[in-house]
Amino acid sequence: MRCDVVSNIMEKKNIDCLVVTTEENIAYLTGYRGPGALIVPKNDRPLLLVPLLEAYRASDIVKGEIEIIAYTEYSFPPSTYGTIRKGRFREVLTSLINEFNMKKVGVDLKSAKHDLVNYIREHINASIIDISTEIESARMIKSVEEIEFIRNAVRIAEKGLKKCVESLREGMSEIDLVRIAEYGMREAGAEGYAFPTIVASGPNAAYPHATPTRRRIKRNEPIIVDLGALFKNYCSDLTRTLFVGNIPNDIKKVLEAVIEAQEEAIDCIEPGIRACDVDEKARKILTKYGLDKHYIHSTGHGIGIEVHESPTLNVSDTTILKEGMVITVEPGVYIWRRYGIRIEDDVLVTKSGREVLSSFAKVIEV
Amino acid sequence: MRCDVVSNIMEKKNIDCLVVTTEENIAYLTGYRGPGALIVPKNDRPLLLVPLLEAYRASDIVKGEIEIIAYTEYSFPPSTYGTIRKGRFREVLTSLINEFNMKKVGVDLKSAKHDLVNYIREHINASIIDISTEIESARMIKSVEEIEFIRNAVRIAEKGLKKCVESLREGMSEIDLVRIAEYGMREAGAEGYAFPTIVASGPNAAYPHATPTRRRIKRNEPIIVDLGALFKNYCSDLTRTLFVGNIPNDIKKVLEAVIEAQEEAIDCIEPGIRACDVDEKARKILTKYGLDKHYIHSTGHGIGIEVHESPTLNVSDTTILKEGMVITVEPGVYIWRRYGIRIEDDVLVTKSGREVLSSFAKVIEV
Repeated sequence: MRCDVVSNIMEKKNIDCLVVTTEENIAYLTGYRGPGALIVPKNDRPLLLVPLLEAYRASDIVKGEIEIIAYTEYSFPPSTYGTIRKGRFREVLTSLINEFNMKKVGVDLKSAKHDLVNYIREHINASIIDISTEIESARMIKSVEEIEFIRNAVRIAEKGLKKCVESLREGMSEIDLVRIAEYGMREAGAEGYAFPTIVASGPNAAYPHATPTRRRIKRNEPIIVDLGALFKNYCSDLTRTLFVGNIPNDIKKVLEAVIEAQEEAIDCIEPGIRACDVDEKARKILTKYGLDKHYIHSTGHGIGIEVHESPTLNVSDTTILKEGMVITVEPGVYIWRRYGIRIEDDVLVTKSGREVLSSFAKVIEV
Repeated sequence: MRCDVVSNIMEKKNIDCLVVTTEENIAYLTGYRGPGALIVPKNDRPLLLVPLLEAYRASDIVKGEIEIIAYTEYSFPPSTYGTIRKGRFREVLTSLINEFNMKKVGVDLKSAKHDLVNYIREHINASIIDISTEIESARMIKSVEEIEFIRNAVRIAEKGLKKCVESLREGMSEIDLVRIAEYGMREAGAEGYAFPTIVASGPNAAYPHATPTRRRIKRNEPIIVDLGALFKNYCSDLTRTLFVGNIPNDIKKVLEAVIEAQEEAIDCIEPGIRACDVDEKARKILTKYGLDKHYIHSTGHGIGIEVHESPTLNVSDTTILKEGMVITVEPGVYIWRRYGIRIEDDVLVTKSGREVLSSFAKVIEV
């Protein structure tokens, strides 16, 4: 368990019990990713409450460091891997918290489901304090180990992308290319995908979040490949725009503008710069080429346990970049019913600047 | 848009505006799966509010039937595919609702995020009524079209499973087998996966929700393969337990007990039976063999837009099965640090009984 993060939050928010209920936050603090809740009472042993079906896995992941309590609606004999409590999740969760007799309980309320929060509010005999922002802030700064996991996830995504480029032919379908990309990522050790792989060709490339179809790939049209791997719960997120044959002149100009916007935005990343400044940089370059009206999303986002996490590189996020943050930089241009272009890399904020974790050619014609 | 569902809910709950904010419910009602909100004012045109980057895709999916309103924090010129509103999601959403001047607004609050619900409550000038249960009930009964999509998703998953069986060899890793399964599903037209594919061998098979690892597959040990495809937003969910070589006698008895439990449970499915009755049937068979203490999850769940939806085949769900429901039946036995067995099929409740949508051998030794 990340004891330093937990004790910092407990001290800062002056709480005597920390309760974390969202999968991503549990994964961040314990390494176990799945349903349940982490309960850390002050000066007592932490508990991980999980559905019975997850108890063996959770138990093997947290290896005695955290006590496992499994809930189930059935009657079960005592177990060897942890305690079993009969009841539904919310019932067992609130009973457990109440048993500690705490006065101030910190819960990650912000992204919890509404009906769970209501139930907790009604059933806990303590005041409840939202600790979502504090966990979010902690998650933004990656540890050496987390950076290593993300590096691996990036390396795996690059191998998938390489397979795509090697196999790309006219007449293949978007789904064909997805399976080659994913096969390549699995071959390189992907434990899963950071998000549904996107391959979007021709007019489909104008949808930033396209679902791959059976559309056949044609010569001289942009094919956006956006893919990410999962490694030890951590994500990568890369995009390239590929071409079979040549890049038509008008599209080449757009591609070059997007690359320029991406590289200028990357070059301005360093501790002290705000997230919105990076966005502004990319947007200014695209404005110079008259393409800003086709730039319909933000410039990037944090990656880690989640593929989209804080900060967001957009106009309203004034988060100051710090050493240890990992962010994507992904400007794009989208022209409805015609085509789209996007280039995306993952960037680590270092002590004195930045390190681009991915290295892959940006102009690709096969 | 599913106008019949919308108007039934509006009438039943006596509301003059319906607002749906969760991705799955939006996908169910409109076909567009992504972030945003569907707003249906009584006697007025429905609106789909989406982030600007999703506007082209949403527009092409709903094809003029629903008006698209895109939100963005940037200034954009007027567009051809819909209206653009400047602001954040929650700001634009509540302004839009308030502009209709409605008295009773129905919102799917239950699984919405807590902070969004709070914001809506504070900013809407109308009383808010929860319509989550009504949408959930509607989603349980699948239309002819939805059943066809699920049938296709099942067919695709079976093709992936077939590839697995054909390729299975001693010494392959779990991740190797995952990539073959997924490649097979993509080849058969999968637009995505219903959930992260599970391949869990030997002791890893004791984790019902295992993450695939680089562990090498050995002879005579159970290998659980649990996979599902996405087709037109709809899910399938199948599991088989495979063996390289022979099935050891003690494990064979367990496998046969699981198959018996599954088949007996399937055979009792018909309209009028309760979800908990199907669970009880499976559990009774496993109890007969002394295996109930290793049966650590429920017997199944509804599938559709989500891979886990209502009803749940467990002790506390008294939902009465009706024609058009599609549920999984998946008993299993899990012995910590030794092995696991699970068999799962997808079953349609018909007018007079049931139809098993999947057909795949249940004892597989290669």
